[in-house]
Amino acid sequence: MPYERTAGRAQDALRPVRITRHYTKHAEGSVLVEFGDTKVLCTASVEEKVPPHKKGSGEGWVTAEYGMLPRSTHTRSDREAARGKQSGRTQEIQRLIGRSMRAVFDLAALGERTIHLDCDVLQADGGTRTASITGAFVAAHDAVTWLMQRGAIARSPIRDFVAAISVGVVQGTPLLDLEYVEDVACDTDMNVVMTGAGGFVEVQGTAEGEPFTRAELDVLLTLAGKGIGELIALQRRALGV
Amino acid sequence: MPYERTAGRAQDALRPVRITRHYTKHAEGSVLVEFGDTKVLCTASVEEKVPPHKKGSGEGWVTAEYGMLPRSTHTRSDREAARGKQSGRTQEIQRLIGRSMRAVFDLAALGERTIHLDCDVLQADGGTRTASITGAFVAAHDAVTWLMQRGAIARSPIRDFVAAISVGVVQGTPLLDLEYVEDVACDTDMNVVMTGAGGFVEVQGTAEGEPFTRAELDVLLTLAGKGIGELIALQRRALGV
Amino acid sequence: MPYERTAGRAQDALRPVRITRHYTKHAEGSVLVEFGDTKVLCTASVEEKVPPHKKGSGEGWVTAEYGMLPRSTHTRSDREAARGKQSGRTQEIQRLIGRSMRAVFDLAALGERTIHLDCDVLQADGGTRTASITGAFVAAHDAVTWLMQRGAIARSPIRDFVAAISVGVVQGTPLLDLEYVEDVACDTDMNVVMTGAGGFVEVQGTAEGEPFTRAELDVLLTLAGKGIGELIALQRRALGV
Amino acid sequence: MPYERTAGRAQDALRPVRITRHYTKHAEGSVLVEFGDTKVLCTASVEEKVPPHKKGSGEGWVTAEYGMLPRSTHTRSDREAARGKQSGRTQEIQRLIGRSMRAVFDLAALGERTIHLDCDVLQADGGTRTASITGAFVAAHDAVTWLMQRGAIARSPIRDFVAAISVGVVQGTPLLDLEYVEDVACDTDMNVVMTGAGGFVEVQGTAEGEPFTRAELDVLLTLAGKGIGELIALQRRALGV
Amino acid sequence: MPYERTAGRAQDALRPVRITRHYTKHAEGSVLVEFGDTKVLCTASVEEKVPPHKKGSGEGWVTAEYGMLPRSTHTRSDREAARGKQSGRTQEIQRLIGRSMRAVFDLAALGERTIHLDCDVLQADGGTRTASITGAFVAAHDAVTWLMQRGAIARSPIRDFVAAISVGVVQGTPLLDLEYVEDVACDTDMNVVMTGAGGFVEVQGTAEGEPFTRAELDVLLTLAGKGIGELIALQRRALGV
Amino acid sequence: MPYERTAGRAQDALRPVRITRHYTKHAEGSVLVEFGDTKVLCTASVEEKVPPHKKGSGEGWVTAEYGMLPRSTHTRSDREAARGKQSGRTQEIQRLIGRSMRAVFDLAALGERTIHLDCDVLQADGGTRTASITGAFVAAHDAVTWLMQRGAIARSPIRDFVAAISVGVVQGTPLLDLEYVEDVACDTDMNVVMTGAGGFVEVQGTAEGEPFTRAELDVLLTLAGKGIGELIALQRRALGV
Repeated sequence: MPYERTAGRAQDALRPVRITRHYTKHAEGSVLVEFGDTKVLCTASVEEKVPPHKKGSGEGWVTAEYGMLPRSTHTRSDREAARGKQSGRTQEIQRLIGRSMRAVFDLAALGERTIHLDCDVLQADGGTRTASITGAFVAAHDAVTWLMQRGAIARSPIRDFVAAISVGVVQGTPLLDLEYVEDVACDTDMNVVMTGAGGFVEVQGTAEGEPFTRAELDVLLTLAGKGIGELIALQRRALGV
Repeated sequence: MPYERTAGRAQDALRPVRITRHYTKHAEGSVLVEFGDTKVLCTASVEEKVPPHKKGSGEGWVTAEYGMLPRSTHTRSDREAARGKQSGRTQEIQRLIGRSMRAVFDLAALGERTIHLDCDVLQADGGTRTASITGAFVAAHDAVTWLMQRGAIARSPIRDFVAAISVGVVQGTPLLDLEYVEDVACDTDMNVVMTGAGGFVEVQGTAEGEPFTRAELDVLLTLAGKGIGELIALQRRALGV
Repeated sequence: MPYERTAGRAQDALRPVRITRHYTKHAEGSVLVEFGDTKVLCTASVEEKVPPHKKGSGEGWVTAEYGMLPRSTHTRSDREAARGKQSGRTQEIQRLIGRSMRAVFDLAALGERTIHLDCDVLQADGGTRTASITGAFVAAHDAVTWLMQRGAIARSPIRDFVAAISVGVVQGTPLLDLEYVEDVACDTDMNVVMTGAGGFVEVQGTAEGEPFTRAELDVLLTLAGKGIGELIALQRRALGV
Repeated sequence: MPYERTAGRAQDALRPVRITRHYTKHAEGSVLVEFGDTKVLCTASVEEKVPPHKKGSGEGWVTAEYGMLPRSTHTRSDREAARGKQSGRTQEIQRLIGRSMRAVFDLAALGERTIHLDCDVLQADGGTRTASITGAFVAAHDAVTWLMQRGAIARSPIRDFVAAISVGVVQGTPLLDLEYVEDVACDTDMNVVMTGAGGFVEVQGTAEGEPFTRAELDVLLTLAGKGIGELIALQRRALGV
Repeated sequence: MPYERTAGRAQDALRPVRITRHYTKHAEGSVLVEFGDTKVLCTASVEEKVPPHKKGSGEGWVTAEYGMLPRSTHTRSDREAARGKQSGRTQEIQRLIGRSMRAVFDLAALGERTIHLDCDVLQADGGTRTASITGAFVAAHDAVTWLMQRGAIARSPIRDFVAAISVGVVQGTPLLDLEYVEDVACDTDMNVVMTGAGGFVEVQGTAEGEPFTRAELDVLLTLAGKGIGELIALQRRALGV
Repeated sequence: MPYERTAGRAQDALRPVRITRHYTKHAEGSVLVEFGDTKVLCTASVEEKVPPHKKGSGEGWVTAEYGMLPRSTHTRSDREAARGKQSGRTQEIQRLIGRSMRAVFDLAALGERTIHLDCDVLQADGGTRTASITGAFVAAHDAVTWLMQRGAIARSPIRDFVAAISVGVVQGTPLLDLEYVEDVACDTDMNVVMTGAGGFVEVQGTAEGEPFTRAELDVLLTLAGKGIGELIALQRRALGV
């Protein structure tokens, strides 16, 4: 008997996804992205300089930072600023977000400037990293539009859309877009990042319990592809492009 | 000629204040407090243990942490978690919030448990510390109600309301509840924390430019008292008590 | 019955204050300041460069650092250098000292150089931050004299004197210049920084126990004004100006 | 025309792999693993206690740390101990090694003790994380044998073999076991961790340049499976089991 | 022609040495030690617990920390607490002071308690580590007397006196007790720690320029022995024993 | 009856010493040095820049870092990179290695470049610091040869050989080149660094138990001289010079 999801959600259904642009007023891009009860504020900040390894290259840089508010989770976690360091998990996630964004950016077309993406989790219910990537792209898009409107760049450095989703197997049932209780229960957990054209940017699959088979992997990748197609449609609708 | 405020605001008027309870779902208290464009998420988390200096005392503890999202401000600031330490300003503010809460708590009545208040600034436009105190109190109140409903404590450890407001002198004009452009321009900047009974918990006045006189101080304290009265009325209305 | 102070000190009396200039030999200003048993070594060091935010501004900078020797206190505290970070209290105090000094400095007249004030507590008995401000001013004055004698600056950037004192209410009695046992026992604790002209630079009042009233605040401010007048007279005598 | 590898290596060939047990004398398991010019020293240390989250659980723990000697690489990198923190890359790799080991350990059968795996890169030429996993397993196996010989545990907690390999696409050619020059040049880079039974433990694929297709992914997974089969045969031979 | 020392000091003469006990009031031992213009405040603090490696051993511990006030030196140095770490030099010195004290302590006779020695340099003019050791011994002696007077220990755990001096060769001339200008100019620099009975506790010789010969070493050790004999006489006089 | 050493080693005999050049392939100098079971990998890396205090001086710099792999020792030690700081012992040792190298380098002849020596202990059995110095010299020599072969410098900046050995007294018997069990048991422990010409660069003697006498010191220095003579012969043979 297949696993029953909260609120009768189908195995291949996303949670309700909301993308709210202009959520805060100072950033060049500011997006609240919600995957069900997971809520992440993604801001894009333009800085007119680049990190040392890009200085003088004529190219720009796109980078990301990630954080969880201490009580975004079921039980309060220590504040990383107070502990004095970011956890390995945090660093892993922010590196993933940065790589995903750069996969669709033409850094030469961006020019010698940096777009900083800050993804801060206000409320967590599974899938914070995939929501972050999906929302960060929209924020980055708004920052690029802002740069173009001011004439700072002539053409958009964005070459394609990018979004991410988690998939997993819970009690033998392949599921799209895991919420927290599913994430905790799953045997296999996979995060997939894909472009609008359907190319893979990242595939990260982990066996939490038993190792997974090639067949399971295939099912999960197909499921992820379906979800990402829907997410990119939602990004397009939010951006009106 | 007196200083003209944004949107024709009167010298002794608060910005529109909104207090939204249950803003996120995991915390025992979760309040979004808005003073105009300043938006702070205040959560209260109950932990069934106390810091070392209270162990075995029979008393509880109330403490606070404060943070600003990197792009809550006009230009992006470094993420404190990434820099590996909290700034002096951050520590000063979180110590002030903690003291202000403890001023109205009967720690013995709380029992050996801790209430952690996390004040995270989503958007900054002046007055983040006073909004934090005002919102944190409501979140703490909700956490206490939660404890009482579960029978963990018999009577409320909260002895009075507490709220905070900034006042200052800009171009010779005393103003209530400074927004960012006023904060930058002011000669004298004062943060005042008061209880529902009208007692002072904290008075922190700083001459940014010229030293201030006793007469100016008196005017500012009166102005603060007026504003705090209004804030406490708003807290009461939000809490329905 | 009013509170009885150590050694029959009057409620409005300072402890014996001693200001010893040229206490150590390398610094441009070096002052041992004693408020009774509180002893703080304040040195002023001139550096011919400014921090990044002042570079190219034509203006100088005045800044302070504060520390307590591990056994300056009743029981030994951890050494902050060994723990690897300064406490929130330390940062709060050194920020206060720095602001207080800058309140009487004309940074343009100082030119693009920095005066570093180091306030190190050799022995603590209450009032270390107010002693630090009072002594740091004298050290800064000596550093300015040294600069003028070498012809580095034509006129003094010091616009007024500045000193600080603590006041508080113990068992209902308002007291000037709290020593340690009074500081521990007080309901209300206030630190006041004023200029020679009688203007307020900082007023920081905290209710340790019960909130304080406007009337108490008024009494304390008057008491502080009296004490600071005496301190500035002692600074003048020490400097012979 | 397909990409030509160093020394005429076939596209689906591993570099010469050497597994030297008992490389150093103090550790319960000590293995030098070489994938061509990549050389990693993997030690397994048994500690008779567990981290806090396992205390009293009856279960043990297996964890890993990873480091590169400063001049294991083409140009010298900063020593992480001197910089005072581990990079995000280091943390990502050591988390991956730890998860891979735990995937084949029955933690209950291990009992309340910890096996620490230290993977230190003496010389790097691509594939340090996959060599680390492959070598760490052999070191962990030796540590388990040591525990069994001393009668500390009755049966082996190791449920299967585990090994890892990198695969990638360089100039359109899918390659097994990338060396440094190939790693730098590749469009798609994937690290795969599999068990002796052929199950997947981790799949981490990253598009370095263009996104990759489902077809490319399939080819790379097959290639990885072939390589891991050979590695596990080499582990068996080295262990004589 | 031999090197001419400041103020006509003989090659084998100490600078004026002053040992002032009870310099500050809170510590169980508090000594200001002066070797000419080098001034170090040495406090001894008794703590009724021991570090982990001594817990349950029945033995006590004696340990030291060292610091320089930022402007104890010719030019201001960064404050180690603000930089967030102690320099290698600081750690080297405080380890040396600790070992020197333990060399004359019977840790079993001390009982399970710790004596913390804090050596803080108020003014530096060469020889701060040797002055620290010489002064720390007197402070430790006072702390032991305090313990005996309170009946905490029956007999003194101090088995002998200990003191330290620097010697060096400047322009071919062997010198006792180097001051700063000599320290900077010397070819060979040696710090020697000896007991009252004339035994060596530490000998640390460093060739700053040319390597030194066995003959030079012999001359320097004899010179050090003479100086330490005088220092121990001064310690005895200060302690009245 | 004199102390019996492992494997019948004579009191004045070194352990078998092996110096293996070109141990790893990327570094300009790479030496595995073995003193019996103590194994240290010493690499020399040339960097075409100097630290700030040498900038513009026309002189180069030679510096060292030291580390122990976590399980190079009998029981596993914490990884310094994970703890976030180097221990005092580590800093002391790396400073000693750096000074020892600079004692035989003509920094002007090196030109404005840095040689970084990294000494990483793969296996420890006493004498890691003396093995590090002995091996680092050979690595530095290879780096200098590499610089000369490329025409970067015209003549060698190396003025003499340098090597180091430990000596100590165990149960009244003076011993050369202490292994771990001897190091733990010794009363007096001394590390000596000497040049090929027989000059002393460093002498660091510590009484672990009873203070040592001048006569013991003399015996130990003679023993060290013998050992260093042999080590320098081995360095010459390894380098073929």
